[in-house]
Amino acid sequence: MPQNIVVIGAVALGPKAACRFKRLEPESKVVMVDRDDIISYGGCGIPYFISGDVSDPSHLQETSFHMLRDKTFFKDAKDIDILTKTEALNINRREKYVVIKNLDTREESTLPYDKLVLATGSRPKRLDIPGIDLDGVFAVSNMNAAIAIKDRISSGQVEKALVIGGGFIGLEMAEALTDMWGIETTVVEITDQLLPGLISRNLAQIVKHHMEEKEVSILLEERVERLEGSDRVERAVTASGTLDADLVIVSVGVEPNSDLARAAGLDVSPKGAIVVNSKMQTSDQDIYAGGDCVEVINLISGKPGYYPLGSMANRQGRIIGTNLAGGHAEFPGAVGSLVVKVFDLSIAATGLSIETARREGLDAISALVIQFDRAHFYPEKDLMTLELVVEKTSGRVLGIQGVGPMGEGTVGRINAVASILKYKPTVEDIGNLELAYSPPFSAAMDILNALGNTAENILAGKNRVVDVDEFDELWKQRERGDVVFLDCRGWGNAEPFVNKYAQHWKSIPQDELRARMAEVPRDKKLVLICNTGVRSYEAQVTLDEMGITDSCNLQGGVACLKKWGLDLA
Amino acid sequence: MPQNIVVIGAVALGPKAACRFKRLEPESKVVMVDRDDIISYGGCGIPYFISGDVSDPSHLQETSFHMLRDKTFFKDAKDIDILTKTEALNINRREKYVVIKNLDTREESTLPYDKLVLATGSRPKRLDIPGIDLDGVFAVSNMNAAIAIKDRISSGQVEKALVIGGGFIGLEMAEALTDMWGIETTVVEITDQLLPGLISRNLAQIVKHHMEEKEVSILLEERVERLEGSDRVERAVTASGTLDADLVIVSVGVEPNSDLARAAGLDVSPKGAIVVNSKMQTSDQDIYAGGDCVEVINLISGKPGYYPLGSMANRQGRIIGTNLAGGHAEFPGAVGSLVVKVFDLSIAATGLSIETARREGLDAISALVIQFDRAHFYPEKDLMTLELVVEKTSGRVLGIQGVGPMGEGTVGRINAVASILKYKPTVEDIGNLELAYSPPFSAAMDILNALGNTAENILAGKNRVVDVDEFDELWKQRERGDVVFLDCRGWGNAEPFVNKYAQHWKSIPQDELRARMAEVPRDKKLVLICNTGVRSYEAQVTLDEMGITDSCNLQGGVACLKKWGLDLA
Repeated sequence: MPQNIVVIGAVALGPKAACRFKRLEPESKVVMVDRDDIISYGGCGIPYFISGDVSDPSHLQETSFHMLRDKTFFKDAKDIDILTKTEALNINRREKYVVIKNLDTREESTLPYDKLVLATGSRPKRLDIPGIDLDGVFAVSNMNAAIAIKDRISSGQVEKALVIGGGFIGLEMAEALTDMWGIETTVVEITDQLLPGLISRNLAQIVKHHMEEKEVSILLEERVERLEGSDRVERAVTASGTLDADLVIVSVGVEPNSDLARAAGLDVSPKGAIVVNSKMQTSDQDIYAGGDCVEVINLISGKPGYYPLGSMANRQGRIIGTNLAGGHAEFPGAVGSLVVKVFDLSIAATGLSIETARREGLDAISALVIQFDRAHFYPEKDLMTLELVVEKTSGRVLGIQGVGPMGEGTVGRINAVASILKYKPTVEDIGNLELAYSPPFSAAMDILNALGNTAENILAGKNRVVDVDEFDELWKQRERGDVVFLDCRGWGNAEPFVNKYAQHWKSIPQDELRARMAEVPRDKKLVLICNTGVRSYEAQVTLDEMGITDSCNLQGGVACLKKWGLDLA
Repeated sequence: MPQNIVVIGAVALGPKAACRFKRLEPESKVVMVDRDDIISYGGCGIPYFISGDVSDPSHLQETSFHMLRDKTFFKDAKDIDILTKTEALNINRREKYVVIKNLDTREESTLPYDKLVLATGSRPKRLDIPGIDLDGVFAVSNMNAAIAIKDRISSGQVEKALVIGGGFIGLEMAEALTDMWGIETTVVEITDQLLPGLISRNLAQIVKHHMEEKEVSILLEERVERLEGSDRVERAVTASGTLDADLVIVSVGVEPNSDLARAAGLDVSPKGAIVVNSKMQTSDQDIYAGGDCVEVINLISGKPGYYPLGSMANRQGRIIGTNLAGGHAEFPGAVGSLVVKVFDLSIAATGLSIETARREGLDAISALVIQFDRAHFYPEKDLMTLELVVEKTSGRVLGIQGVGPMGEGTVGRINAVASILKYKPTVEDIGNLELAYSPPFSAAMDILNALGNTAENILAGKNRVVDVDEFDELWKQRERGDVVFLDCRGWGNAEPFVNKYAQHWKSIPQDELRARMAEVPRDKKLVLICNTGVRSYEAQVTLDEMGITDSCNLQGGVACLKKWGLDLA
């Protein structure tokens, strides 16, 4: 029997669910309502519209064959009715209808449903500080906000910008403002790292250094206390000073739009997200929800997680479409995969970062490998840094994050691990992962395999490592005299360090270590260093064999120090 | 107790096993023997040395920190002894020693072992035709052969080259000869497709068309019967003609070097590969083997497979190293992952191709999707073609192959599936794969998710498809008049086809189909066409709804026809 389906929200999940359903049940009727007039757009493309990479806002709303996904398109191509500039006011679950209001005419009416889909999405978290409503202060909330920001920039009204929040949208926006418009941009982040919760502090430092090289100012552990200006914003006052800014982008995260669901008595989580089962059904079996307004199970922690991502919404939308038509599709849960371009870097992540894992109460370690993304003899190549997060006792992989050159190399490695996370792989599984090999694409021992092997060696206690931040501490305390920095590279690499820090820096190339064992100081802790941490690991093995065991190996080596911006030479 | 380890073969697996072992048991002794004088090189880099991308042969033999992996390096850095230009003549398993011969002095001696590693690799299959021993005929067998080929080319002695064999080494060589040296090159392949057994005939046609655009001649289903020339090769005589060539590269595959193992009474498979268990032990528990001389279990078919790849050898080498030291590492088996660069294309594959699956007796179908590799609104993007091979009844994924632009995008998708193949994923798992999304890297509904969904729709009978080769058959028979080609794109796209083929080609854009249903011919089979197969699928759903069910949808659409070189307009 034909059904009456109502979908509230017409951006990512809503249209996907509606179209999938209509392909399965063409005889049924679907009505979609949205508060906005611009619908079904690629919201993740907003930073690229603002940068100018995408010239026209309508491009974000087009199909891949250049048809505008507007009301007419949905009617003609999909046989779906859309009511734009229409707000859903409340849901009567007993009588199964939605009360809607036309935002132009202010008229109210009702839409009966057999099944209802909540695709109400998310809204930017509001920063509750004085001056937040000044002209020139924006959130990247929807296409209309994006158009307003770009109008202001392109009319030459912006010289200095402030981005509040160092999450991935904040960084994308900082790049768009700096790289394409030459705007002097500062990112203020309240925590002690960029991309908090997504990648480790160590990797985040690489991103920070890169952005600083691109002339973006980054202020960590800094809080904006108020925004000031006569009618337009002119400056921000932080805990430690004042920043001039004629444009302020607030990107401090998003929160689920669940008011409608809550008012209708549906289960909503403590964090404000709509609760759904694996079929994407809410606590009312005739009401489905998905996308930015719901929580789903994190497959690593087993706890609910919040993933406001367009890709997630699309996949969940299809599942809802199938189930509306009587199917039995299930959303398996999420591992939290992410990729972001920041200038010349690609940053990708899945699962838990080391800090997140520890916050979850897991006894975790992380292994870091820095290696060429392709065969080292292949002319076009670049260094990639990957970090694997592993549960200590079980060797179970909890997550992986990486920073590499632009291109699909880094995200490809992350996706290969993301795919298997739900099967609970161990470090051995990563070491044995069968990745396709050819010199223009990878190394015979791919960085991912090397990472699994390194983690295995760390867990076995054979590779005793320090991270750059721990190295930095040891380095700062070098005058105490209880540590020697032993450079395991060739003399040519070590020489400038030895000349500059004769007291603390010693050179014995790894391949000379056996012959020169007598030169190794036996009364001090050794910090072993090479270019990437591989030869220094070999040196550690040799020293252990000789009974010199008070050593640690700098993960990622000098290459990592450089990426951190910690250039000692 | 310290052990005596002998390793026969010092290219990929041998050094890896030896070094891993020495890191675990530094007090034990390892001797490695090799017939050649150049050892531990990246054999997969040979085509890039020949093309000139890698300028010096020694680069293939260097570590990533530019140390030459020669005898001295292995002694000093790894404490491993190497005997080069030394042949292992036979193995005495009872008394546990190897008889070796110094190829310079012709002296024979013995090497006692506690455990032995066979890393004897593979050799090029020999083509048994007259003229094969003429000067100018080469196999890409080792560094010395590579140096000889490059010497000949760089001294200007080569104008026309013939590559016998269209496998991946043959194609890499054809590119190297054409692209960097401007040599007129012909590839002769005995089967009816390039890369046989690795990708489908359909995808192989895309590769063929691309190579032809790059001015490589490709002859399929052609056999070289003899090579002719006075002392140097001058021409090849094939079943259908004569080809001038002053350089002939024979790349008709490799076969395992297992003579030594066989002579020692170890189990050798019918195909000539050494048989090993999951610990990489031969039928003698004190003798390990791995790399190009062994067979391992294919995780899809459950049958033994042969994977002569440097990456496989490295991973197996580490497992052998661990087990030599009393560890319990296991090689899980292989899915057969592969990637190759051919001019501007990257071609990647894992698991079974559709033809291979059917040859294995599996009831398989394949789904093909052609889609942008990144968000369609992102300025830098290109079309990627992926094909998923699926068991019909179970929906189990058997393999995936793809052709896309150069870069890591295609291989990244293949690796994501390769990683999970051993867990026996279904099409739903591919549709739900959580891939990291951001517009510069992927689409919100990634091509891989779309591929899983398309396969699901095909299995459900909702998307009834034809491949390009089937389309080609229907097209050739169009004068019969029982088929109408229905173009579901906008009029602008369809117009040139309608003008040219008025009788056979009809235009009804998908979004006008409901309104123009009366125009649809009901007495003929409909071949539905759009740019990529997405709108034509929607049209098929709508036609089905209207009771017009004799239709098929061209997978990959006009984009695929173009990539095939089948340009009808």
